[in-house]
Amino acid sequence: MEPEEFRQAAHALVDWVADFRLRVGELPVRSRVVPGEVASALPAAPPEAPEDFTAFLADLDRVIVPGITHVQHPGHFAWFPANASLASVLGDIAAAGLGALGLSWQSAPALTELEQVVCDWARQLCGLSDRWQGTITDGASTATLVALLAAREKVTGGSGRAGGLQAEDRPLTVYCSADAHSSVPKAALLAGYGSDNLRLVPVTRPGRAMDVQALEAALAADVAGGRRPAAVVATAGTTATTAFDPLAEVCEVASRYGAWVHVDAAMAGSAMLLPEQRPLFEGIEGAWSLCWNPHKWLGSVLETSLFYVKHPEDLVNVMATDPSYLRSARDGSVVQYRDWGLPLGRRFRALRLWGLLRLEGAEAIRARLRRDLANARRLEGLVREAADWEVVAPVSLQTVCVRHVPAGLAGPALEQHTQAWCEAVNLSGVGHVTAALLDGSWMVRVSIGAEPTQWEHVERLWRRMQEEAAREA
Amino acid sequence: MEPEEFRQAAHALVDWVADFRLRVGELPVRSRVVPGEVASALPAAPPEAPEDFTAFLADLDRVIVPGITHVQHPGHFAWFPANASLASVLGDIAAAGLGALGLSWQSAPALTELEQVVCDWARQLCGLSDRWQGTITDGASTATLVALLAAREKVTGGSGRAGGLQAEDRPLTVYCSADAHSSVPKAALLAGYGSDNLRLVPVTRPGRAMDVQALEAALAADVAGGRRPAAVVATAGTTATTAFDPLAEVCEVASRYGAWVHVDAAMAGSAMLLPEQRPLFEGIEGAWSLCWNPHKWLGSVLETSLFYVKHPEDLVNVMATDPSYLRSARDGSVVQYRDWGLPLGRRFRALRLWGLLRLEGAEAIRARLRRDLANARRLEGLVREAADWEVVAPVSLQTVCVRHVPAGLAGPALEQHTQAWCEAVNLSGVGHVTAALLDGSWMVRVSIGAEPTQWEHVERLWRRMQEEAAREA
Repeated sequence: MEPEEFRQAAHALVDWVADFRLRVGELPVRSRVVPGEVASALPAAPPEAPEDFTAFLADLDRVIVPGITHVQHPGHFAWFPANASLASVLGDIAAAGLGALGLSWQSAPALTELEQVVCDWARQLCGLSDRWQGTITDGASTATLVALLAAREKVTGGSGRAGGLQAEDRPLTVYCSADAHSSVPKAALLAGYGSDNLRLVPVTRPGRAMDVQALEAALAADVAGGRRPAAVVATAGTTATTAFDPLAEVCEVASRYGAWVHVDAAMAGSAMLLPEQRPLFEGIEGAWSLCWNPHKWLGSVLETSLFYVKHPEDLVNVMATDPSYLRSARDGSVVQYRDWGLPLGRRFRALRLWGLLRLEGAEAIRARLRRDLANARRLEGLVREAADWEVVAPVSLQTVCVRHVPAGLAGPALEQHTQAWCEAVNLSGVGHVTAALLDGSWMVRVSIGAEPTQWEHVERLWRRMQEEAAREA
Repeated sequence: MEPEEFRQAAHALVDWVADFRLRVGELPVRSRVVPGEVASALPAAPPEAPEDFTAFLADLDRVIVPGITHVQHPGHFAWFPANASLASVLGDIAAAGLGALGLSWQSAPALTELEQVVCDWARQLCGLSDRWQGTITDGASTATLVALLAAREKVTGGSGRAGGLQAEDRPLTVYCSADAHSSVPKAALLAGYGSDNLRLVPVTRPGRAMDVQALEAALAADVAGGRRPAAVVATAGTTATTAFDPLAEVCEVASRYGAWVHVDAAMAGSAMLLPEQRPLFEGIEGAWSLCWNPHKWLGSVLETSLFYVKHPEDLVNVMATDPSYLRSARDGSVVQYRDWGLPLGRRFRALRLWGLLRLEGAEAIRARLRRDLANARRLEGLVREAADWEVVAPVSLQTVCVRHVPAGLAGPALEQHTQAWCEAVNLSGVGHVTAALLDGSWMVRVSIGAEPTQWEHVERLWRRMQEEAAREA
């Protein structure tokens, strides 16, 4: 496509984007399409001739927008905030337009160095020491996998490379809390540890943090049994209830056993920007690696996950390749991010975060995060005061976990009731919340923090929750 | 950022992008910055207050553009074409603006179903049977890793999950040609096979395809030695010389040994769109998985790699998770792409390819690919006719591998000469080519196929190559 044709189309498109963001609050939050509806609205065969841009734009309205559950909607309280701030969108447009190719430092020095700069900006904002060096991965699942692969090789002194894990006679073990994200067991299996060697450490009640005594007991038992602890994944803000594992204690225990500690702060990491919340992360400096996702609460466009390590050589030892066609005179004096993770090539990821931080500024971002925390505390207060309603987990940050327990309702009937009123809220279109299991019982998570969500939206959701729960009871 | 502020900034930005694409041909292709230059041009600390968008835009010109090696430049002949067609950029802008969150089908049905549709469109364009089902990964490195992880579990009947690879008493082995991409050995090591169990099968000369007799001998020797062949990675278009492994024969031999065959067609896959080139891929239907990158030659914005399998359950068996907070009434009747690969969440990747295919149309894309093939053949002819110049590998597609061998020059002096004239061309700014090792000797790859590259640009590069080679000789 020629630049002048793009210019014309792109002006129309960015107007469309602005208009979409202005009206998204009037759309149902959860998509109402049924399986196959989107696919069947599109031609089965690819176009031979070019189509006009107006047809493309019309299909965004006709097919795509109704087919999306709108996480940019003020009524989005499901899963986690997934803010694609328009400041970050601007950075992403620049990235696509520039079309830079991150293969090596030489292929796009600015892509590498801006990634270093914004990772360091984020480090400073989080109050992390300058011992940490960061990179941008696509998500926390990848970061955890990379950490567990690096731990595997670190603990075996790299010996695992020659024979692979197949040559190890003393099984390597991995530990996380029973409330850790599903990506942690997945990463342990993919990295070849095996489910027999994964320990799901019990959590305390009601805080649901990793029980450090149980961790220590598991480590001791494994060592006594001839196994080798390789890694502990600690969670700072679990998905279900935003519980925080006690990082200082976990790091202390793990380091005595020589295990790599990875901190998964995917959703909650943004709270490190708030000095008053920083104590939740106490002890994080003792970890070997940590990850958090600015593409969640902070406001960056997706696939912007920050992964920090103190010793990049632990990644380079495992991930480095040196094909002749990528060598340059600069090698040795520059960072090659391809040696820090799985992919070789990368797009200009840093621009999304650069746009966000520069065009919003840290002060305004912190104010937004504090708004969400205040809204969560306010909702928590209303739920606690309401008859038949329970807050089922401590409210650490912006997620409020609730249950409606009408007198006399228990067991399977209560489980059914919880799922029914949750679904009714979601069908209403005015808000979207998530049902999740806690110790085998359903509860409903209200995750506050979509960029446009003000108190009035939380209040409207709460009214609807009460109405639907009363109707379903 | 409010939509109206975005609207104003985004109009300025898309004009900037259009202007950048109009003038990129006047910039030096290879960035001239030195290590640290970009980072030192930026503030060391993050901004507290929001900055004006004009400052952001000015920094794109001041810091970012000079810090990029311009692969959208008509003089880009390095590595591989990395076309971010402006048609694809439009799709990417829509993706960022919509801010959809791909966690499950329910979180964004259109994100999942459009990915199914465009993967199927691409399948049809490639002349692949409808037995193949596709997904979009970030790149070929990830696709190869996923294939080797799936092969590991497939061959062990999933038993590897319980004890991990640590429980395997008969080592699993992996095979690729000695010319396979560096990501293949990397993936084999990350998947835990171990370098002792990776076989680099010799290539034939001069074609540099995998020697199938040598593959068969290696497979037989491993089985005789008590090892279990798990996977063969065949390359369709190697990075160095665009050599094609004989897919039909590789698949036939591998299937006799029960090994998973993955085809890495990262760069060359686009050629499947051309019926007259399709014979190069003969036998691809016999593979278990295949990958090619529309973000290379075809024109899609980066991190758009197509990964096809015939039996998605082989991925789901290894990659699936089922956290309660992602369950919905639709489960079981829809595709959950998180179960096909490493990441949980994904952005709206399909829009980049949808934009490209709809706004360019297949016919125009094929015409552009044919233009590049014709330019490569024309350059090959000139090089073959020129005194002291050699074409050092068969020209399968759009990459011409050359060496300048002045009379009397050999050994280390020739190596130095090759690197010297290559570097001189790259310093000139008018073109950018890649030096690479072939059997331990340096040669220079001219990879033709940047979107704006016409014959005149190839001709200008060839003149410069001759001038610099003469000057350095």
